[in-house]
Amino acid sequence: MLDTVTMKLNADPLILSALREDITQEDVSTNSVMPFEKKGSVDLICKEDGVICGLPVFERTFHLLDAKTEVEFFTKDGDEVKKGDLLAVVTGDIRVLLSGERTALNYLQRMSGIATYTRQTAALLEGSGIRLLDTRKTTPNNRIFEKYAVRVGGGTNHRYNLSDGVMLKDNHIGAAGGVKEAVRMAKEYAPFVRKVEVETETLEQVRDAVEAGADIIMLDNMDHDTMREAIGIIDGKAEIEISGNVTRESIEKIRDLPVDFISSGALTHSAPILDVSLKHLHAI
Amino acid sequence: MLDTVTMKLNADPLILSALREDITQEDVSTNSVMPFEKKGSVDLICKEDGVICGLPVFERTFHLLDAKTEVEFFTKDGDEVKKGDLLAVVTGDIRVLLSGERTALNYLQRMSGIATYTRQTAALLEGSGIRLLDTRKTTPNNRIFEKYAVRVGGGTNHRYNLSDGVMLKDNHIGAAGGVKEAVRMAKEYAPFVRKVEVETETLEQVRDAVEAGADIIMLDNMDHDTMREAIGIIDGKAEIEISGNVTRESIEKIRDLPVDFISSGALTHSAPILDVSLKHLHAI
Amino acid sequence: MLDTVTMKLNADPLILSALREDITQEDVSTNSVMPFEKKGSVDLICKEDGVICGLPVFERTFHLLDAKTEVEFFTKDGDEVKKGDLLAVVTGDIRVLLSGERTALNYLQRMSGIATYTRQTAALLEGSGIRLLDTRKTTPNNRIFEKYAVRVGGGTNHRYNLSDGVMLKDNHIGAAGGVKEAVRMAKEYAPFVRKVEVETETLEQVRDAVEAGADIIMLDNMDHDTMREAIGIIDGKAEIEISGNVTRESIEKIRDLPVDFISSGALTHSAPILDVSLKHLHAI
Amino acid sequence: MLDTVTMKLNADPLILSALREDITQEDVSTNSVMPFEKKGSVDLICKEDGVICGLPVFERTFHLLDAKTEVEFFTKDGDEVKKGDLLAVVTGDIRVLLSGERTALNYLQRMSGIATYTRQTAALLEGSGIRLLDTRKTTPNNRIFEKYAVRVGGGTNHRYNLSDGVMLKDNHIGAAGGVKEAVRMAKEYAPFVRKVEVETETLEQVRDAVEAGADIIMLDNMDHDTMREAIGIIDGKAEIEISGNVTRESIEKIRDLPVDFISSGALTHSAPILDVSLKHLHAI
Amino acid sequence: MLDTVTMKLNADPLILSALREDITQEDVSTNSVMPFEKKGSVDLICKEDGVICGLPVFERTFHLLDAKTEVEFFTKDGDEVKKGDLLAVVTGDIRVLLSGERTALNYLQRMSGIATYTRQTAALLEGSGIRLLDTRKTTPNNRIFEKYAVRVGGGTNHRYNLSDGVMLKDNHIGAAGGVKEAVRMAKEYAPFVRKVEVETETLEQVRDAVEAGADIIMLDNMDHDTMREAIGIIDGKAEIEISGNVTRESIEKIRDLPVDFISSGALTHSAPILDVSLKHLHAI
Amino acid sequence: MLDTVTMKLNADPLILSALREDITQEDVSTNSVMPFEKKGSVDLICKEDGVICGLPVFERTFHLLDAKTEVEFFTKDGDEVKKGDLLAVVTGDIRVLLSGERTALNYLQRMSGIATYTRQTAALLEGSGIRLLDTRKTTPNNRIFEKYAVRVGGGTNHRYNLSDGVMLKDNHIGAAGGVKEAVRMAKEYAPFVRKVEVETETLEQVRDAVEAGADIIMLDNMDHDTMREAIGIIDGKAEIEISGNVTRESIEKIRDLPVDFISSGALTHSAPILDVSLKHLHAI
Repeated sequence: MLDTVTMKLNADPLILSALREDITQEDVSTNSVMPFEKKGSVDLICKEDGVICGLPVFERTFHLLDAKTEVEFFTKDGDEVKKGDLLAVVTGDIRVLLSGERTALNYLQRMSGIATYTRQTAALLEGSGIRLLDTRKTTPNNRIFEKYAVRVGGGTNHRYNLSDGVMLKDNHIGAAGGVKEAVRMAKEYAPFVRKVEVETETLEQVRDAVEAGADIIMLDNMDHDTMREAIGIIDGKAEIEISGNVTRESIEKIRDLPVDFISSGALTHSAPILDVSLKHLHAI
Repeated sequence: MLDTVTMKLNADPLILSALREDITQEDVSTNSVMPFEKKGSVDLICKEDGVICGLPVFERTFHLLDAKTEVEFFTKDGDEVKKGDLLAVVTGDIRVLLSGERTALNYLQRMSGIATYTRQTAALLEGSGIRLLDTRKTTPNNRIFEKYAVRVGGGTNHRYNLSDGVMLKDNHIGAAGGVKEAVRMAKEYAPFVRKVEVETETLEQVRDAVEAGADIIMLDNMDHDTMREAIGIIDGKAEIEISGNVTRESIEKIRDLPVDFISSGALTHSAPILDVSLKHLHAI
Repeated sequence: MLDTVTMKLNADPLILSALREDITQEDVSTNSVMPFEKKGSVDLICKEDGVICGLPVFERTFHLLDAKTEVEFFTKDGDEVKKGDLLAVVTGDIRVLLSGERTALNYLQRMSGIATYTRQTAALLEGSGIRLLDTRKTTPNNRIFEKYAVRVGGGTNHRYNLSDGVMLKDNHIGAAGGVKEAVRMAKEYAPFVRKVEVETETLEQVRDAVEAGADIIMLDNMDHDTMREAIGIIDGKAEIEISGNVTRESIEKIRDLPVDFISSGALTHSAPILDVSLKHLHAI
Repeated sequence: MLDTVTMKLNADPLILSALREDITQEDVSTNSVMPFEKKGSVDLICKEDGVICGLPVFERTFHLLDAKTEVEFFTKDGDEVKKGDLLAVVTGDIRVLLSGERTALNYLQRMSGIATYTRQTAALLEGSGIRLLDTRKTTPNNRIFEKYAVRVGGGTNHRYNLSDGVMLKDNHIGAAGGVKEAVRMAKEYAPFVRKVEVETETLEQVRDAVEAGADIIMLDNMDHDTMREAIGIIDGKAEIEISGNVTRESIEKIRDLPVDFISSGALTHSAPILDVSLKHLHAI
Repeated sequence: MLDTVTMKLNADPLILSALREDITQEDVSTNSVMPFEKKGSVDLICKEDGVICGLPVFERTFHLLDAKTEVEFFTKDGDEVKKGDLLAVVTGDIRVLLSGERTALNYLQRMSGIATYTRQTAALLEGSGIRLLDTRKTTPNNRIFEKYAVRVGGGTNHRYNLSDGVMLKDNHIGAAGGVKEAVRMAKEYAPFVRKVEVETETLEQVRDAVEAGADIIMLDNMDHDTMREAIGIIDGKAEIEISGNVTRESIEKIRDLPVDFISSGALTHSAPILDVSLKHLHAI
Repeated sequence: MLDTVTMKLNADPLILSALREDITQEDVSTNSVMPFEKKGSVDLICKEDGVICGLPVFERTFHLLDAKTEVEFFTKDGDEVKKGDLLAVVTGDIRVLLSGERTALNYLQRMSGIATYTRQTAALLEGSGIRLLDTRKTTPNNRIFEKYAVRVGGGTNHRYNLSDGVMLKDNHIGAAGGVKEAVRMAKEYAPFVRKVEVETETLEQVRDAVEAGADIIMLDNMDHDTMREAIGIIDGKAEIEISGNVTRESIEKIRDLPVDFISSGALTHSAPILDVSLKHLHAI
């Protein structure tokens, strides 16, 4: 959640860095024509239907430039918005409005794009009881924003990073000498509040994982029949995650299986943006 | 260009920050099963056809974790790659290979996605003499990588940020009191190595821009006939940029116009990734 | 684990900050008497019996000042050391040896103190099957070192911080409206790789926790009989952590209970240091 | 002193870093059960007798998370507090109170522990005219807080770091070629506002130090008779510091000597914490 | 311009770093004699005739230490000030006034020195239509302040840094294989909003530069007759910058030439300061 | 001293920041014409007579960009150099040589300017036994380099900053209630390795300062006779610093007085640069 504390500690440094990426010395265009402070306001308009997400980041971008900027919202994160909707009005020094515009919108359009795409994908799973997970395939230095957008879109967050969750992949299994040994080592090593997830590719691995007491078992690129068999072997003794390319067709088939989760990297790495823009700037 | 100097000064801090985003304390999974250093190598495999981009960033990610890691490349940025191609082999401490994998790939897949998409779009303009420009609609804290990918894909970079180029938009024009006044103020104010670009929406604005001596005139959302007329008015006295939603259809129409540039935000904000992965990790 | 990756990404910035705390401009004393580089070596001597811990941090401190410094170790983290033991020999520019000495030792003495104290405490639990946990009562900006020292001393790490584990305390329970509701909300909210731990003070809360499916139940300040009853209620359906002041006497009583963990803040907040020092500096 | 300026420039970055150590993304537990801001207050209770220290740091921790948090104090740094005392009431968003709790207390308990231990030790010197000094044996990245706590406890600060004081130890003396030469070089080199202190182990070194004009002479691990003789040699021409393990017994003997200072590393490296906690959180 | 946005993003980190350079732990002198906050005010007095510059930085220095500090100005950047003038009154905690004094004055005296020197030099060009340019010969980590001071003094800023302007010097020309090739490569490479400037030393290079379409041609260390000839060759097809040691005498000769710019490194690298000081501190 | 440790901990961050000030994304000019690494070398030439200073910083600037760059020096800091002298040859990737040139020279020319000016001023005091002191009137974020240059030029460093020396000025004296009280409070408060200096304007203050045991007494803007009288009062009981505008004439008069130090702000705030440049770049 992008609450006060997270925003201050973890988001602010990234937003400031993004602003400095766009303004290394000054906004030359704005300073050319506006030598003095002048109060004005501008409208945040939606230009495409979708799910809005990132409004607190949008607001924070302007606040970090000038704490006196005010944003009045007519919608909130997670709302479905329509082309033409007035989403917010931003009021403050016009120079600040112009200088912060692009960075604020870059966050908002990307986060809304992810939330929109996630909601569309999650809708395909509706009624199945299966939850849609994200992955770590996020844009560098944007994970905190992208994982939040997945949640706002109705998805569920997988582990945040390499430090807060154990996921034993084929390479870890190879290094340990097998699924059983890998799970055992992870249970021994990892801070005790973490569940241990293990990736399996064969039914034998599934059996080993269950026996070793894995908390979550991922079925990786198995065909439909093998998945059914694997689910039978697991028999409720662990949570089940299906991984692989999630397409409309593949989801259709999977949604009848009694599994807990499906994960999709595309939610964060390939969602197109949702178009939003600032319009009608005027002095007040 | 991501030369030595730019990499050291401007890319390294971002890559390190991305690595810290993924590893806030340690890679729990890897450390569970591999308590000691062990040399190994892994293959970088292409999983989709496209244009590869970001190989120096991919390599740098591992070098920043451990300077002893070695990467042998079988391709270079800008090359067209095919599904199944072996792009590189990474050799070093297996723990480093595993811990750096996701961050290295997150950069590579995104940059390659942008280069691929840019090349496809640029191809539509081939032979027309019109160049394809990017915008500032980049992902926060990734502009240096995304602008580079546009260039590798065959696009041309517009200004980097608000500090290194003057672009007078409707709001600046309004604040200045008109196109002429805005251009005059910018020429007076801006450090003298910068060109002055002005956005125009009407033929009258085009006339004013020409008269005021704008270096670049952007025709914003004009219909085809108005653009033709505007081009006649400009008559070679300024460079011309066409802005607006660039689609396959719109490009078809525009490519016969004698303009210099077309800009497209989608190059950086909505290109899907190119799928790449690390496979066949083995001890050596 | 303080492996290469963790050291580089997460420990280095802290060690550099500690060095800058001690050297804001220059080491005036050393520079007064040694205007030029001069190679020498110095012995790391143990001055008290205990468990040594932090040798990689000790070495890294000198490496960060001068990559050419070499450290030869005669022991490794976790070893029991005796007063008078030669633990290592550090060789390099004498100015670097002198300037880095205090910071390197400050880390080593504190980490060894924690490892020593943890091992003594863990010994009291030997044979009981109960594991000794640390807490978040660590010294600010030293958690990564102190948690590692606990592990080296034979303890087990509880969650690293507020982001990587769920622990529902009385205040969270109050806010949620009860144990059941709190556990339910946490299971709904928390990234799915995290276990949910809940603190209980009464048998009714224990019952609610079991029913709600808590992964770990903490028995907080319960008397011995109540703990027994609680353990009966839990009946293997969750892991059990005993919390409270861990003293030699209290451990004696607890060690016969069939619980999984005992946690102790004192491991990190009140362990005295282990005395170590650098001696016999000489030019070579 | 932790005045406004020092807090802003030198303490804030450390406190923020400590908060980020504890919250790398978000406080999962709190956000699970409290999705919205809610005002509340909580009591700071003393759980052991001692000297309280670090209240401004405690307050600042909450302010850095949310400037709207208010802390009402019923005591001040340096006061003797009793088990059960209500020390302060903190009022603000309950989520902020919960998320900042541990970091705020980690500072307060450690600083109070040092102040308490310092006052106990200083009491042994009462009436003797001898002042109790700290050393640089502080916890990395906590010196500013620990040196302040020593002062609040009634101790005197030795030099802050390697840059602001000259202390010539055996290794410096060896490098210079003797006490006289070392003192001469330091007087020549060191910025002129610094006093020059030299460590001596023999009466001959003491004589050389006096002759060379050292400002402060440290008697290092000398027996009682040698110290008496050294004091006679110095004869008021320099200040005198006694160094070595300060125990209750050793202080008894030393307190009758006409020396100026005794230094003790234990004040900062081995003081146990003073137990304090936040209780009675409730919405208001 | 040092507007709100530039101050926040680009100046604040430098000012804070400067304050930390002067206060690594605390202001010992002030804290010795003023243990508590006490309100007072102090006068900013001009001690030399000149052009004042840097008042917003002066104010910001105190605000960064304590947002409650108030500064009332009786003059503004660019004003001519006289010895003895009262420029401003600063009101706030006396400890803050004392601790921030030196850093605030160090900025103000240097920036005013540059503005004063620039105005004097620019005066020599008055009526000639030639503008005075600065260079990149600025003090490290002070460019943003020094370039602003040049502008306030009546000068014009050349490119800000290596990233925002193209200037092809002899070495670039050599690498490219000649003026024509260098200009062509730069036009091909550089983001399209940048003008291309090329340095020329011979008339042949001038001819090549014109032919290649350089936007700005610098005449480097040419004698007067050669310059005249070069100007004839250029014939209005590019802007002209004269570079070299600008002295009172050389300017006298140049001012009759029909060129656009003269650049001078001395504006920023050798201007003496303007003396200003804080006087009459008193409690209120 | 700019030894290895100080360079690494305290100078590197400033040099890197200066490089980033000059290269916010890339060196556009160099990258335009040199797309690939190419080895070359360039000469560092002196263009004015003076004292060279800052060679290690010059070298470090290139090393921070590319550790493979090599610098061969034909002179060392403190040497007198003549116009036309070859000072060094820098060898490495030509792109690195071009991109680092300006920053490396900006440091070198400023530091050499200060060393040159200091030596000239110190020469006026030769034979008098009086030492020349600098002040804190340095360029923000350049103190470490400027104070070093003063020392190289033959001056002596006063305190480094507000944290490492006590200097009681009129305002401190006023706050304390008089010279005696101020000195007493400082002796009580200040870490014991620091000397206490007090500024005096009247003979009565001098008397109080002596009586209170000040270590250093500054005679501020006193006329010659008053100074003589003050010196008599002090009578060897404290060191004496003369402060005020140091001119050739004023020094002539002062040099016969039996004082210890004269301080001059001009050494760092108004020394013109020493001209140096990189010439004869060629591929090798």
